[in-house]
Amino acid sequence: MTDPNRPSTTDPNRNTLWARALVDELAAAGIDAVCISPGSRSTPLTVAFDRHEDIHVFSHLDERSSAYFALGRARRTGDVTPLVCTSGTAAANYHPAVIEASQSRVPMLLLTADRPPEIRDSGANQTIDQEKLYGDAVRWYRDVAEPEATPRKLRSLRTTAARAITKATGTPAGPVHLNFPFRKPLEPTPVEGDVPTDLPESATAGRDGAFVDTTAGAPELDDDALRTLAEKFSEPRGLLVVGPSDSPGVDPEAVAAFAHASGFPVLADPLSGVRYGGLVRTTPVVGGYDAFLGERVREAWPDPDVVVHVGASPTSKPLRKYLAAVDADQYVVDPAAGWREAEFTATDLVVADPSRLLGRLSRLLAGPGSRTWQERWTEAEAAHETVLDERDGFCEGRVLEDVVDLAPDPSTIFVSNSMPVRDLDRFGTPTTKTYTALGNRGASGIDGIVSTALGAGSATTDDLTLVTGDLAYYHDMNGLLALGRSDVEATIVLVNNDGGGIFHMLPIEAYDPPFTSQFVTPHGLDFEPTEDLYDLSFARVEGDDRDAFRDAYAEATTSEGSHVVEVATDAEASHRVRDELRERTVERVLEDTT
Amino acid sequence: MTDPNRPSTTDPNRNTLWARALVDELAAAGIDAVCISPGSRSTPLTVAFDRHEDIHVFSHLDERSSAYFALGRARRTGDVTPLVCTSGTAAANYHPAVIEASQSRVPMLLLTADRPPEIRDSGANQTIDQEKLYGDAVRWYRDVAEPEATPRKLRSLRTTAARAITKATGTPAGPVHLNFPFRKPLEPTPVEGDVPTDLPESATAGRDGAFVDTTAGAPELDDDALRTLAEKFSEPRGLLVVGPSDSPGVDPEAVAAFAHASGFPVLADPLSGVRYGGLVRTTPVVGGYDAFLGERVREAWPDPDVVVHVGASPTSKPLRKYLAAVDADQYVVDPAAGWREAEFTATDLVVADPSRLLGRLSRLLAGPGSRTWQERWTEAEAAHETVLDERDGFCEGRVLEDVVDLAPDPSTIFVSNSMPVRDLDRFGTPTTKTYTALGNRGASGIDGIVSTALGAGSATTDDLTLVTGDLAYYHDMNGLLALGRSDVEATIVLVNNDGGGIFHMLPIEAYDPPFTSQFVTPHGLDFEPTEDLYDLSFARVEGDDRDAFRDAYAEATTSEGSHVVEVATDAEASHRVRDELRERTVERVLEDTT
Repeated sequence: MTDPNRPSTTDPNRNTLWARALVDELAAAGIDAVCISPGSRSTPLTVAFDRHEDIHVFSHLDERSSAYFALGRARRTGDVTPLVCTSGTAAANYHPAVIEASQSRVPMLLLTADRPPEIRDSGANQTIDQEKLYGDAVRWYRDVAEPEATPRKLRSLRTTAARAITKATGTPAGPVHLNFPFRKPLEPTPVEGDVPTDLPESATAGRDGAFVDTTAGAPELDDDALRTLAEKFSEPRGLLVVGPSDSPGVDPEAVAAFAHASGFPVLADPLSGVRYGGLVRTTPVVGGYDAFLGERVREAWPDPDVVVHVGASPTSKPLRKYLAAVDADQYVVDPAAGWREAEFTATDLVVADPSRLLGRLSRLLAGPGSRTWQERWTEAEAAHETVLDERDGFCEGRVLEDVVDLAPDPSTIFVSNSMPVRDLDRFGTPTTKTYTALGNRGASGIDGIVSTALGAGSATTDDLTLVTGDLAYYHDMNGLLALGRSDVEATIVLVNNDGGGIFHMLPIEAYDPPFTSQFVTPHGLDFEPTEDLYDLSFARVEGDDRDAFRDAYAEATTSEGSHVVEVATDAEASHRVRDELRERTVERVLEDTT
Repeated sequence: MTDPNRPSTTDPNRNTLWARALVDELAAAGIDAVCISPGSRSTPLTVAFDRHEDIHVFSHLDERSSAYFALGRARRTGDVTPLVCTSGTAAANYHPAVIEASQSRVPMLLLTADRPPEIRDSGANQTIDQEKLYGDAVRWYRDVAEPEATPRKLRSLRTTAARAITKATGTPAGPVHLNFPFRKPLEPTPVEGDVPTDLPESATAGRDGAFVDTTAGAPELDDDALRTLAEKFSEPRGLLVVGPSDSPGVDPEAVAAFAHASGFPVLADPLSGVRYGGLVRTTPVVGGYDAFLGERVREAWPDPDVVVHVGASPTSKPLRKYLAAVDADQYVVDPAAGWREAEFTATDLVVADPSRLLGRLSRLLAGPGSRTWQERWTEAEAAHETVLDERDGFCEGRVLEDVVDLAPDPSTIFVSNSMPVRDLDRFGTPTTKTYTALGNRGASGIDGIVSTALGAGSATTDDLTLVTGDLAYYHDMNGLLALGRSDVEATIVLVNNDGGGIFHMLPIEAYDPPFTSQFVTPHGLDFEPTEDLYDLSFARVEGDDRDAFRDAYAEATTSEGSHVVEVATDAEASHRVRDELRERTVERVLEDTT
């Protein structure tokens, strides 16, 4: 009769009971996986997670990689994968991923073990100040009470677990930090009297299902406010800008409905969740703006009357600069009342769930706006694609173009900072294939990229492709260990230009030294030995041999196991070709659309 | 006439002037090196450091490793090596090392570049909340004013630089965080009017030498308090326990003078700075306590009357437990009024600089105490060394014994957590050779070990040996990149027992699963390919072949370049041998000294 996943008075000590109650409650809230790093102080948590039948344990030796792996899973699914680590600097290694989760609104739950309160700040070993370790980057922090087998404390713990999930997946989603002090014994060693045998079952085993069920609403406008907006949006020329999506992302059907009703072209960031997939079949999705927007096009075209922003600030700088320059009413839609438009030209903040808002608005709009305006954008998109098709000359963007062309359907495509996400933006044209394109654009770091990608891959049966530069690959090589230690398989496209290629785009290029030594920082690393360290095969092609890359990539995605396809490129030459292509696209767009 | 290191009105823009004034002031304060990670927002700082003729630049691609490298340098020298990184998660990667620096009182100066204030929290790219990013782990935090070429602002900047060094190297030493907002242009691009040509030279070039000279005292007792202490310390049986040293560490001559005057044996932690070196020739230095202290010895011996603690809490758990159990007056000496004794049996806190205190006390003590008491400890030490000499059977401790036997003189010997530092404590017997033994015992993490060791090595002409386990080696493999990118060479002894060997010492061993899968976490990594990734040669020996290890280690320390000597061991068998040896030592000590 007794459920082995549920704590009871037969548990050997208070720590075991406590940790099992926590894990039981997390499982009741739908948690089905956890990322654990080995350590002693976290023993009660580790044992409880490991013994729970419905929870899969990912074991990561490097906590920095572990946190990014958990971030990747949550980014892909919208669900929390908790993290467990021991006391001390282990917890600080989570900090970069915590910040990324906070900035990009990805749910995360940090369960850090701690020394008991009386030995903090006393010189005790592996004891640091873990209170509010992540500062304002978490949505909620609790120093959890010390374990004790009393009904009220156990109710408090279960309620805390439920609230943690609610806060982590709320509006905005983000990291939650629970700090757990434990004193010995940490193992499931019997301690006489530690768990009173007369504790009622309601205290130990919780309730049927979750201890606390959360029913959460999202901000929604009242009918008057909605009608007012619908009037304002009934303009001939509008744009719907969909930036990188918050988890779980805007509903493509709501975007489609709004686009049809309004006649607004959809400027879809590659990470918006709407550039790839069925929406493209029915809706004017524009992905080439990064290649043609600028002063010349803006001067040749009429300005939009109204711009609606949903999601985070777009990846494309030309797009952001264009939006800053046009004379339009601009609406930032953000359910969390955040502000994600750093040019400060927006005129209105709309605090509402974007999917529901767009869906409701689509039923109220006066009718589609200017057909000429919409055609202008779709023709520009076509011009951009024609220039891509006609061109020769290699640039790194070609790699992303080929990945979008060749990746299996469905695929999760993860793109690193700094260049791959920009190249996906410009060269990864919209397609109806079911691609989920992801990146870490909250803080746009080059750290943790491998792990975030593998975490995303671990959460889905999609094929997984990661496109990364060499610095990001190096920064999180430790993350490759997950290939052998979990089920995930990946195709990793490693664009290797031996250092920080993006700096060639910046004025510092003119100052050498220190340009090469301190900015490009060529490392000369030969990454092929990662094949012998980790569970992957390694192939290298020259960037300018397009067929070789396409063959190697196609081969990698169709073979068993994980593969690195390294593409050797010249960052400076790539930037030149990028610039030339942009020139040609702008010319073509001006010819075709004015 | 103009000094190229000094800013002037010919500087092209305010950012250049600002960063040059900062670097000029740091150089005037004695800073001669910096650790920089590539990034765009930090361009003014990077360019200014790179162009300063008296500052050596270490370039690190992984900020986590960079911070540990800087920590290692400061740990070895007591001087600050500033850190420079760009905005975003880069800065969060410093956090683990910041905590270690805070806990072990090592000076550190974090110079993080930031976006200008008006675009924070607005969705701008690579913009996070960097304010007070490291919470209470820093001694001082300032969000530095925005650059501007006005006399008062420039004076404020130079004063801030001086204060930062003073705070970082103060009592207690530790990390200081200065956050620098910069707006474009970040490069030394001329900006008309940005640096007024009529700025007085005093505003741009600072002063001759440092802008602010710091004269700092250390806590010292008045004569009455000192005499009272001297009376209390004039007991027959006393102990001087020297724990891991704060930077720059306790003066061995003061320790010797106190030991001679008091007759107190010196229980010297391996990281105390007094277990190895000239002190051993003249003074009863005990290093074997970890092998024989315990219930049996405590019951057979009289308790000490008085115990004086200097430095951090000792590494040895048997020692800490012994001190918690004896009936003695115990004095914690801490210049920062900290408390570093987590058993809370100490009776007195003495807030004073330990070197000065011991030196002054040595001139006031009534005379050496019990000769029998002192001999008891030196004979126990001799018994411990005899047992080591006589034994056969391999355990991992043998590796540390051999390293201490064979390392070149002088050497810096860096030991990782968890086991190498404990093995050094038990098996690394005192010697007169000039060894500087270092470890990260502030938070006792296994992260950043490689980088801390290489940083320490980079600051000295000593030979450098690092002894590390496989988990710590894996955790900071990125740190190995410094071997090729800086002048440092190292001999790395890699004790590989394929996972977390220390867990065999804990009760969790009896619970498998999850013992193997979640605690030992065997990774099966073959580390030999690190030879092809990084600038090192790799050799592997079996742990039980002692001659092979000694030959390989001796060869490594006498050959050019960096070397990894991997020792394959069985953690469980090692723990059994450790326990047997301890038994024999206790027996021998009881025979010899009671």
